[in-house]
Amino acid sequence: MLLSGGLDSTTVLAAAATKRRVFALSFRYGQRHAAELGCAARQATRLGAVAHETVDLGHLGRLLVGASALIEGSALAVPKLGDASDGIPPTYVPARNALFLAYALAWAEAIDAVDIWIGTNALDYSGYPDCRPEFITAFAQMAALATRRGVEGRPIAIAAPLSELRKHEIITLGHSLGVDYADTISCYDPAGTDPDVRACGACDSCRLRREGFTLAALADPTRYASSTQAKRP
Amino acid sequence: MLLSGGLDSTTVLAAAATKRRVFALSFRYGQRHAAELGCAARQATRLGAVAHETVDLGHLGRLLVGASALIEGSALAVPKLGDASDGIPPTYVPARNALFLAYALAWAEAIDAVDIWIGTNALDYSGYPDCRPEFITAFAQMAALATRRGVEGRPIAIAAPLSELRKHEIITLGHSLGVDYADTISCYDPAGTDPDVRACGACDSCRLRREGFTLAALADPTRYASSTQAKRP
Repeated sequence: MLLSGGLDSTTVLAAAATKRRVFALSFRYGQRHAAELGCAARQATRLGAVAHETVDLGHLGRLLVGASALIEGSALAVPKLGDASDGIPPTYVPARNALFLAYALAWAEAIDAVDIWIGTNALDYSGYPDCRPEFITAFAQMAALATRRGVEGRPIAIAAPLSELRKHEIITLGHSLGVDYADTISCYDPAGTDPDVRACGACDSCRLRREGFTLAALADPTRYASSTQAKRP
Repeated sequence: MLLSGGLDSTTVLAAAATKRRVFALSFRYGQRHAAELGCAARQATRLGAVAHETVDLGHLGRLLVGASALIEGSALAVPKLGDASDGIPPTYVPARNALFLAYALAWAEAIDAVDIWIGTNALDYSGYPDCRPEFITAFAQMAALATRRGVEGRPIAIAAPLSELRKHEIITLGHSLGVDYADTISCYDPAGTDPDVRACGACDSCRLRREGFTLAALADPTRYASSTQAKRP
């Protein structure tokens, strides 16, 4: 399973662990919020993954730095509350989920995994094309043709159990599974270093997360940067 | 374009350079024949690529070492002439072309490339599923759904110009474009280190390459290990 250390993928880890021996996979790709990798490692241990790999994708960040606000060192700014938004936001990372799933596909075939789990969501999300169910379906079709497993008639499936859930439903699900959301990072632009990280409270991801806790009627354990507390809507 | 440093992808580089400003991409993935990366770098310069990146895919080799004879340190042997063969050989690397193309897709979108070129061939090849035209088509469909470019209605195409060529036709094409095949490595199990590398002369890839030069009626510039010269059919 793909584990970023965010709210969604940590929930998927908890759900997957009820049904599978979980091999978790995280990536260092030059992300601005690399502190999430600390959360991923701790959640993998806490939720009982039998293995967790954090893979360095080489100099992908350098190759993508001009194309995404989510890459460390990008001149593009992470949009905040009140910024105009239309279409796919600048935090989109080119082909990210295709690349992550392809790496997972290689490992999944090597260990003869049943399926690959991913925490994409297409309701309360930032509008990224590679979070839509039609992308997941197309990836699975490609994967069946790409692999020995597909030729053998037992293709590796892609499970995206959060696809059709609202954010508060995801939080409710994770809460019922005992997920410690205090140790997850959703913020696109956090301050501090792991484990003392503060969410900005104003990016698209912070907004969706905060609204999710409100609608789920659960206390939001997120630690926000004090300077942005005043911006809370 | 994906550039391994082998015969096929070097031919694609020469062909692409007649039509495009070429950004070439190579991978260090734990391959047994990493000496090919030296060929890739020199061919990128020789054939006029405007950029060439060699990306380290982290510890992919360690994750796949039990699953492919092509990974350095694998206990699986590279099949040689006379070995029984049936179906997909042990030199298959799980999901390799899906992963390479996905990485290329990310870079291609970041630099707004027209298309991605790959040297897959489905006639004189080792029977890998991810060399078939139907895989390439499925990847392109997935890529259109994965990216901003696809949403904008100008998806990144995948060009596989060698798909339907026989090996000797590929060699004839490259020869007409001035490709120096002496500085390409096709062997799955070469001896020596770059640039003094010797082909085994007995693996499936050596067999296809040698037959190609014979059918193209061109001198084979490949340097074979002297110990395997005697095995030449």
